[in-house]
This record gives sequence, C-alpha cells and structure tokens, in this order.
Amino acid sequence: MSRPNLALVGATGAVGTVMRDIVSTREDIWGEIRLVASPRSAGKTLKVRGEDVVVRALAPEVFDGIDIAIFDVPDEVSAEWVPIAAARGAVAIDKSGTFRMQPDVPLVVPEVNPHAAADRPRNIISTPNCTTLSMMAAMGALHAEYNLQELVVASYQAVSGAGVAGTARLYDEVEALAGDRGIGQVAGDVRKALDNKLAEESPFPAPIAFNVVPWAGSFKEGGWASEEIKLRDESRKILGIPGLKVSATCVRVPVVTTHSLAVHARFEREITVADAHRVLAAAPTVVLMDDPEKGVWPTPAAVVGTDPTYVGRVRQAIDFPNTLDLFVCGDNLRKGAALNAAEIAELVARESLSA
Amino acid sequence: MSRPNLALVGATGAVGTVMRDIVSTREDIWGEIRLVASPRSAGKTLKVRGEDVVVRALAPEVFDGIDIAIFDVPDEVSAEWVPIAAARGAVAIDKSGTFRMQPDVPLVVPEVNPHAAADRPRNIISTPNCTTLSMMAAMGALHAEYNLQELVVASYQAVSGAGVAGTARLYDEVEALAGDRGIGQVAGDVRKALDNKLAEESPFPAPIAFNVVPWAGSFKEGGWASEEIKLRDESRKILGIPGLKVSATCVRVPVVTTHSLAVHARFEREITVADAHRVLAAAPTVVLMDDPEKGVWPTPAAVVGTDPTYVGRVRQAIDFPNTLDLFVCGDNLRKGAALNAAEIAELVARESLSA
Ligand SMILES: NC(=O)c1ccc[n+]([C@@H]2O[C@H](COP(=O)([O-])OP(=O)(O)OC[C@H]3O[C@@H](n4cnc5c(N)ncnc54)[C@H](OP(=O)(O)O)[C@@H]3O)[C@@H](O)[C@H]2O)c1
Ligand SMILES: NC(=O)c1ccc[n+]([C@@H]2O[C@H](COP(=O)([O-])OP(=O)(O)OC[C@H]3O[C@@H](n4cnc5c(N)ncnc54)[C@H](OP(=O)(O)O)[C@@H]3O)[C@@H](O)[C@H]2O)c1
Repeated sequence: MSRPNLALVGATGAVGTVMRDIVSTREDIWGEIRLVASPRSAGKTLKVRGEDVVVRALAPEVFDGIDIAIFDVPDEVSAEWVPIAAARGAVAIDKSGTFRMQPDVPLVVPEVNPHAAADRPRNIISTPNCTTLSMMAAMGALHAEYNLQELVVASYQAVSGAGVAGTARLYDEVEALAGDRGIGQVAGDVRKALDNKLAEESPFPAPIAFNVVPWAGSFKEGGWASEEIKLRDESRKILGIPGLKVSATCVRVPVVTTHSLAVHARFEREITVADAHRVLAAAPTVVLMDDPEKGVWPTPAAVVGTDPTYVGRVRQAIDFPNTLDLFVCGDNLRKGAALNAAEIAELVARESLSA
Repeated sequence: MSRPNLALVGATGAVGTVMRDIVSTREDIWGEIRLVASPRSAGKTLKVRGEDVVVRALAPEVFDGIDIAIFDVPDEVSAEWVPIAAARGAVAIDKSGTFRMQPDVPLVVPEVNPHAAADRPRNIISTPNCTTLSMMAAMGALHAEYNLQELVVASYQAVSGAGVAGTARLYDEVEALAGDRGIGQVAGDVRKALDNKLAEESPFPAPIAFNVVPWAGSFKEGGWASEEIKLRDESRKILGIPGLKVSATCVRVPVVTTHSLAVHARFEREITVADAHRVLAAAPTVVLMDDPEKGVWPTPAAVVGTDPTYVGRVRQAIDFPNTLDLFVCGDNLRKGAALNAAEIAELVARESLSA
C-alpha cells in the first residue's frame, strides 16, 4: 500500500495546532495531510510539515481519498461527522467524548491497550479524555504488574483543557489583575475586578486567576461533574478492569497547559516505592522525577510541551495496605490529546502498510 | 477576675496582621493588648482595636502581667520563647509546629475538642497546621455522627501559608509574567523568565505563578513532606481517633489566601449526601455551598477573608461504601490560623473570668 492520506479535522483549535506540530516532527509516514475546520476558517493557510496548506471547510467530500481522519472538534461536531468519515472509508480517530463509552468503539492508549485499536467494527477509534490520559501510561505500567484495584484522584487541570478560549481567558484575567497587590484577599474581589475589566464571557464558571475551581464539565447524577465520571469509566475501559473502584474530584487551576493528578492507588499485591520506581523507570513513555530530598518532582511549568508522562512523589501509603500515593503530570494537549491520537493513527497506518 | 491581658507575639507577620484584625472585630473581652515582634520591628506603631500600639521586641519582660500570649512566629522562635512565656505565668497559645504533637500539650479546635484546652499541664496550648485546620470543623461535625475511619486528601494550598514572603512572591511572579501570552507553554520557560526578572529568592521550591508545586514543608522518611505528615498526625490527635487512616498529597497553588482540600472520607456507617448536608448545615461554623447544578460550590476567591469553613461538591462515592467525596475551602489566615487561636484564647479567658 502507498502512504496513507491523513485528514486533521479541527486543525485550527488548541488540540489541532499541537496535532499539526506533532505530525510535522514525528517520522513522516503520511501521503497527503489535509487540514479541515469550520467554514469560518476555510481558505486560511496553515503550516504542516513545513508546508503551507489551505484549510478546507468540513464537508463529506473532504474525506474522499482519506485513509485516516483525526477529529479534534466539539462533541456535537464529532457526533455528526465522525460516522460520515467512517462511512466514506476513513478510519476515524475521535478526541471528543461522543463515542468513548460505546461498546463497539475501542478506547485506545497505545502504551496500554494497542491491540484494542484493531477491533473497530464501526471504523471508529476513540481517544480518552485528557485528564484520564494524563495518568494512563503510568497507571497502566503499574497495573500490568501489581493489579490495580482502587483509585482516588484529585486533579489540577490546566485551562487549555477548555480549548483556545480557556488559554486566552487565563492570560486575560492575569493581565487584568496583575499589579494589584491586594487582590485575592477579600471575598469576591477577584470576580468584581474581572467583571469591571473584561467584557467577554469566561469559558469557566468562576474566576480562574488567583483561584481554583472545583468543577469541570457538565452536571451528572449524584452531584458528579462529567469529567469525574469520565475518569472513572474511561480508566475502567482502557485498563480492562470493569470492577475498578474510582473516586475523582476534578479541579481547574491557573496553569496554561499540563494537567497534574494526585493519585492514591491500591493494588492487589504489596508494592513498595522501589517496586514502583523500577516499573515506572522501565516504562518507555514515563519519566520518573522522584527525589524530593533534592527538590526533584514534576510540575506543569517544568514539563509542559513535552511528550512523556511524568511521575514523582511516589510514597507508600502509611495507613493503607498495598497502596501508593503519587503525583503525575502530563501535557493535556500532547499525550492528553494530539500525541495519543497521532500514535493511534500510526498504529492503524502500520497495520495497513504491512497488509 | 479583671479583664485578661493579651500579648500577640509576631504581630507584624501574615498571621499576626489578621490576628490584630480579629481581636479588633470580635467581642472585646481583653484588658491590655500588647504587640510583640522581632527587634527589627520594635518601636513601630501598629493599630489594634482602632488604637495605635507601639510594638515591643520579644524579651522575657514583655510577658509581665500577661494572662494569655498568642505566638505567630517561626518554629524556632516558638521553641525558645513559648516555654518562657508559660513559665512567667501566661497561658501560651502557639501556632507553630513545635509543640503540637507533644503528649502534654493539647491541640485544640474549639468546634471539635474544646474540653482539651482545659487540660494543659505545661500552660501551653497548640493550634493546628493551617491545612489540617481548613477541614477540621467540617470533618469533626461529620465524625461526631458517622465515625470517621479513613481520609484521602489532596490540597490546593495558598501562598500566604508561607507567610508575607509567600504572598509577595506570587504578586511578584504574576507581575513579572503578565502580558506574555505565550508563557507556560514550553518546558522551563516560566522559571527562565522569573530568573531573568526577579532578583530575590523565592520561598517556594519552584515557580508558583502559572504552576502548581507538589511540595510543602520539609523532607520526611518515605518521601513524605512534613505538611502531609502533620495533616495525618494532627487530624488523629484533634479528632481523638488514634487509628484514623490518612494519606495526603499537599500541593501549593497560585492562590493568595484560602486553602482548599479535595477530601475522600470513609465512615463507619452508611452516609448519604442528604445526611452530610443535614450535619454540615447544622454545624455553626460551617457553611454549606453545594448546588452544583446551579454552579454553587466554594472557591478560594469567593470566600477569602471570612471566618467559616465552606463545604461543597458533596458526593456519595460510587464505588466505595460509607464514603463521601467533598471539597472544602477555609481561609488559612483566619480559621486556619488567627481565628482559631483567638477562639482558644477566648475559651481560656472565659474559664478564668468565671473562676
Ligand atoms: N484541549 C484539550 O486539552 C483537550 C483534551 C482532550 C480532548 N479535547 C477535545 O478535543 C476537541 C477539540 O478541543 P480543543 O480544545 O482543540 O477546542 P478548540 O480550541 O475550541 O478548537 C475547536 C476546533 O473545532 C473546530 N470546529 C468547531 N466547530 C466546527 C464545525 N461546526 N465544523 C468543523 N470544525 C469545527 C474549530 O474550527 P474553527 O477554528 O474553524 O472554529 C477548531 O479547529 C473537543 O472535543 C475537546 O473536548 C480537548
Ligand atoms: N501563614 C499561615 O497560613 C500559617 C498558618 C498556620 C500556621 N502558621 C505558622 O504561624 C507562624 C507565623 O507565620 P506567618 O505566616 O505569619 O509568618 P510571617 O509572615 O513570616 O511572620 C513572622 C512573624 O514572626 C516574627 N518573628 C520572626 N522572628 C522573630 C524573632 N526572632 N523574635 C520575635 N519575633 C519574630 C516576625 O516579626 P518581624 O516582622 O519583626 O520580623 C513576624 O511578626 C509560623 O509558625 C507559621 O508556621 C502560618
């Protein structure tokens, strides 16, 4: 087979921009790379693989001749267009929440369940939510040897998880408040200052500068946020542990890009810090940064823009048997989104290249 | 007995400043209020109860005639001077970490264990670490009825927990970085920009603007941070549960004041969201802000500068029996420090007033 042709749908967005960067810097196995976005962006010229490519408006014909289409668009756009791409013969790799939990759509993290990508009766493969993805390479490696049973997770989620609008909002808020050396000390003063200074509506339900916001996604039964339920359901599906116990609290923080997670993980077998270090150091896409006595642990600002999953603060829980506490950082736009999609696309491409 | 005389030691600091505000706005039961700090501040004039008071340098004589001395100073200053104040006849209420876990020093949260304040063989009473304190009123109320057994906690700690230097540092970093709408997207760029622009050393071990830092305190065995161990040990002592299982991950976030905690709490008995709402709504110093469908949950910026402990995001853990997940916010300088000390001082003062 000749080189497969790739369509990047949503090429102008936060994930789409990193997607273009990633296909431009990884081994080039592609024939044509077609860039697609909304009619608003049609005709714009964007760079991919160092070349100018004209953006096309999403339409059925953009999938003609395409082997693999990666979708980085809002849920409702995916819901409509992913099946159209698949019906026209492309393998559709979708980053939205629409198809992830459907039983006939695999949910793939190449380090954890690469085999699942081959079983795609609808020609659709889903890639997980960025919060889940940020810890999957690490948790998958530990699970493979120690058999994960329970996860209690608190997240520190970056604003770019809410797309380009999220990133713009944090920069806007910081600019509006910087220089006021009394801000954040009186109830409601941050909100009042922002209401006075910023005309645009925020993509977040509360101020995000000088604040943390314990809400991500939409309302679900029992008071859960959709992001917290996704973390539970998607972890179970990716790791193949239907009975995995999960509780998560998802919190947005004033970080541009890179999600962090405080993870409390119980395993079936005893696991020491040394055991975890051995497993994590051997996992190809995980970087262990764990020497707190020397000030070594990951932070978002230190690792943003890079591919690995970073793990630090590995501790054996004092009061809980077979349990580790750890801190994980992963770039939500790279491994959390574009990189994982690119890796899935490469899996599929290699399949057809070897066919 | 006449009105008791009060000394505020560390009156110029982050906690001391709030301390002066608090004794100036609560019911005035005090005779003299003496302000004490380091020799660096001696002779300065500060306001308390609307009056100018000249700050005295810490020395044995400043405790002459003092009934109660509240210490808001670094650990090593407390270690030396708290026993001196106590030996000179003052009841010493200490905010530092020095005496908290000593068996003959009570560790008091007036909503939870007020009786403990009366049993003080050394004339010393300790007030807890701000992170522990931020959740104690809420957890104490739930424990009283449902019997707490396990806590898994992740913190979102404000910079003022590191004193005036912590607050100044966040404002400095935000000012230095504001306006750069690409910052926080390349590994290490935040640190590089700060190294170029800020001469002073940070009280934090990593950039705190546009970042989160998974480290608070000093290094302890097993890779734990002292703040995480304090949260465990102090929760056990305050709640009177020697076997309480606790795992904590403490993370500093770019918030000026008010600590937040994501808490996963297992009880002995079944507990529903409605049960928890009933208990928390009845707890006098707890405010329930829990209607996520209407966007109601606490954030630091919304509640900073106020006295209560705020609780939201109460959920029954889907996969864990008898377990709640919740999100708590408390002002680390008020309930987390100065307010709790003032409340203890009032307890002691009322004892002697009624004696
Ligand atoms: N950001 C993250 O960390 C992250 C992580 C995981 C998953 N995701 C998911 O990835 C998807 C994209 O997120 P994002 O953060 O990149 O959002 P974004 O920055 O808002 O970008 C949205 C993209 O979708 C395109 N689009 C919107 N409406 C369209 C339509 N009707 N037809 C065709 N294209 C349309 C936009 O094109 P125009 O520029 O022409 O409007 C743009 O390219 C979402 O499903 C999101 O939930 C994001
Ligand atoms: N900030 C919080 O949220 C928080 C919460 C819980 C507990 N704490 C604890 O409370 C204590 C005070 O913290 P902080 O945040 O208020 O610190 P801070 O802002 O740095 O203030 C320190 C205070 O201690 C005084 N001091 C320092 N060295 C002294 C000496 N040798 N003799 C007499 N006074 C001296 C300082 O006086 P000068 O101004 O004259 O130097 C100042 O008043 C610490 O033990 C801290 O761990 C703080």
